[in-house]
Amino acid sequence: MAQATLSIGSKNYASWSMRGWLLAKFSMLPFDEQVISSDDPAMRAEILLVAPSILVPCLTYDGVKVWDTLAIGEYLNEVKPKAGLLPADRGARAHCRAICGEMHSGFFALRSALPMNLKRHFKDFKVWARAQADIERIAVIWHECLNTYGGPYLFGAKPCMADAMYAPVVTRFLTYNVKLDAVCTAYCKCIMALPQVQEWVAAAKLEPEEIDELDAEF
Amino acid sequence: MAQATLSIGSKNYASWSMRGWLLAKFSMLPFDEQVISSDDPAMRAEILLVAPSILVPCLTYDGVKVWDTLAIGEYLNEVKPKAGLLPADRGARAHCRAICGEMHSGFFALRSALPMNLKRHFKDFKVWARAQADIERIAVIWHECLNTYGGPYLFGAKPCMADAMYAPVVTRFLTYNVKLDAVCTAYCKCIMALPQVQEWVAAAKLEPEEIDELDAEF
Repeated sequence: MAQATLSIGSKNYASWSMRGWLLAKFSMLPFDEQVISSDDPAMRAEILLVAPSILVPCLTYDGVKVWDTLAIGEYLNEVKPKAGLLPADRGARAHCRAICGEMHSGFFALRSALPMNLKRHFKDFKVWARAQADIERIAVIWHECLNTYGGPYLFGAKPCMADAMYAPVVTRFLTYNVKLDAVCTAYCKCIMALPQVQEWVAAAKLEPEEIDELDAEF
Repeated sequence: MAQATLSIGSKNYASWSMRGWLLAKFSMLPFDEQVISSDDPAMRAEILLVAPSILVPCLTYDGVKVWDTLAIGEYLNEVKPKAGLLPADRGARAHCRAICGEMHSGFFALRSALPMNLKRHFKDFKVWARAQADIERIAVIWHECLNTYGGPYLFGAKPCMADAMYAPVVTRFLTYNVKLDAVCTAYCKCIMALPQVQEWVAAAKLEPEEIDELDAEF
């Protein structure tokens, strides 16, 4: 059987690609990366062949092509059920999917006002009130999980789908110097210390600058 | 065991509630409805007790409270695996989750410009270009499914999670008189003919007008 392939965008900017990549890493399924730059018109055309519309991440494995980050997570969970991408307990699993769904369909103010940018650090970033409301909801979600399942990850001793979904949020909190309480700060440290997250962040820092950002500086 | 309870919003306007309700109906799990009006401050407070933040739909069953429409669908699929909420074939299941994910996290132009409103019909509605791009992507999704799995529903002979996710889109296409090709028109007819959809639409038409809409007319 051919090795799995995961199409991803920029490691510095593409938060959904980071989620898909972490899910694949957590699942222990070996995979090849195919990095797609959405700035390059030729690559843009290639994306159209690789994934329906311009969608990354996209996973191809065992004759199945699956896009959309949650669907990739569910597929990886079926392919590698022992990896624990979803909690074993049915109630915890439903809880996990609910907070993954909240991340997947919501937090627009946070996502637009504090875009992922792993190379940068804004010490005195002013958080917009609506983004602050998103931050507060995320803190409630994290506290509830860490209290219920005992940490250090959201659903206990091992990182799961929910940790992959919230990992780019952790990096945003660091990039924009968002004030957090001790519980959330400890969770952020725990996520940043994961070897998979460190590998992704190191690769992001080596990426050449994107044209858009260079343009924006002039 | 106590009967399941599903919290929902307005049947005329709340497209996510319609999705959650159809998923519960398709699953054949008997449930009580708890209708929450988000306009009423007292109900708003109640929502805060019923669901984390102001989230409907929310399903409570067998000691588990699950919010977020996709998570509700996955939970119902676990509780009632024989109902066929997800396709039996692994590749088809991944495809189903991918297009459910696209609906869950995308199509913002369509969702904001053509909000669900089952009581109204706009004969000469002008569709904004970005909403039109969403409509075209949805047509591609539907064609691909109907061609691959043979229809009349997206994944074959029975309605599944994907049909529930796209059902409010079908009602929008009718409300705003969106031009569709023969294949998409036939699919819309098939969804509107489902007894569960007819039951929901009939109840929506009996709802009292909402204050916001009355205000808007003056």
